[in-house]
Amino acid sequence: MKTFIKNIFFDIDLSVNELKEVAAIFHETKHKKGDVLLDIEDNVRYQFYVVEGCLRTFFLDEKCKEHTVQFAVKDWWISDYIGYFSESKSVLTIECITDSIVLKVSKRNLEDIYKKVPKIECFYRKKLEKATVRFQKRILNNLALSAKERYEIFLKTYPNIEQIIKNYHLASYLGITTESLSRIRKEI
Amino acid sequence: MKTFIKNIFFDIDLSVNELKEVAAIFHETKHKKGDVLLDIEDNVRYQFYVVEGCLRTFFLDEKCKEHTVQFAVKDWWISDYIGYFSESKSVLTIECITDSIVLKVSKRNLEDIYKKVPKIECFYRKKLEKATVRFQKRILNNLALSAKERYEIFLKTYPNIEQIIKNYHLASYLGITTESLSRIRKEI
Repeated sequence: MKTFIKNIFFDIDLSVNELKEVAAIFHETKHKKGDVLLDIEDNVRYQFYVVEGCLRTFFLDEKCKEHTVQFAVKDWWISDYIGYFSESKSVLTIECITDSIVLKVSKRNLEDIYKKVPKIECFYRKKLEKATVRFQKRILNNLALSAKERYEIFLKTYPNIEQIIKNYHLASYLGITTESLSRIRKEI
Repeated sequence: MKTFIKNIFFDIDLSVNELKEVAAIFHETKHKKGDVLLDIEDNVRYQFYVVEGCLRTFFLDEKCKEHTVQFAVKDWWISDYIGYFSESKSVLTIECITDSIVLKVSKRNLEDIYKKVPKIECFYRKKLEKATVRFQKRILNNLALSAKERYEIFLKTYPNIEQIIKNYHLASYLGITTESLSRIRKEI
């Protein structure tokens, strides 16, 4: 466990005691392909750090059309962030695309650690700044770019996961049909 | 100035000295309707807290179609957050929709204050969590909701600004034409 924690916080200088305190709030869980870590209407207590595997968040709209919001592979974080930060019920499902190992951490335990180890609060503040950049880019890209351009950005953002995920996962992330996805791939 | 700073950080207990240090990094500027605070390709040094007035961020896509990304009224913050957090050039323009008074603060000065007054870092971490919720909601709403539903959410998010902004501002925020906006208003 401590090795994973050292990986997560590799750029922070933590004392042995601090490392021990931080490690204590993370819990490792192992999951099979297809397992659901969080379902719609669940209370969102955790965010998940991916040690191994591939997961995604998705939801169904009123017409039962599926939308993939995020993929997460090794070293990525995933959750229903609306529910997690605003302490509301989940609107997303978190599903394992492959067998996966994750470390889960609750909002409450993190808030406690921020007080005990302020360096961890600084780490998460910077992580949130990066997430803000990523979300803003996603909003702008959805507004302004073609499906082909969004596909090219996907390939840069998530290298090597195209082989793991199904075509309909990717199509539902790009907001297009699987037929359009095939056409774009042929074009490229 | 100190009154504004007290307003911003109203839920933090700052000593007289801390308040003085924090106030010193904010700079008040006054602007006329139509003024541009930040233009595309500018270095993004500041985020802006709105004391008075109404501003928006927007960009033009390759087809010269305008997209409004955000509005900001009293007590809101606005910037090109991609540029601000990743220290890159601006992809957005910040424009005053009305005469406005803002307080600007640089990333560098904020980083210094986080070290001196950790309560400020905690404040911004929580602000970023709220922003993450807002951005995620915008992404999900754009994927799943009709223009009419997005318009109704706009009315809740920005009460009383519909009278201030122009129809094409709002239409370009909702991603629809001004004709569609008129039709939706009649329906409601």
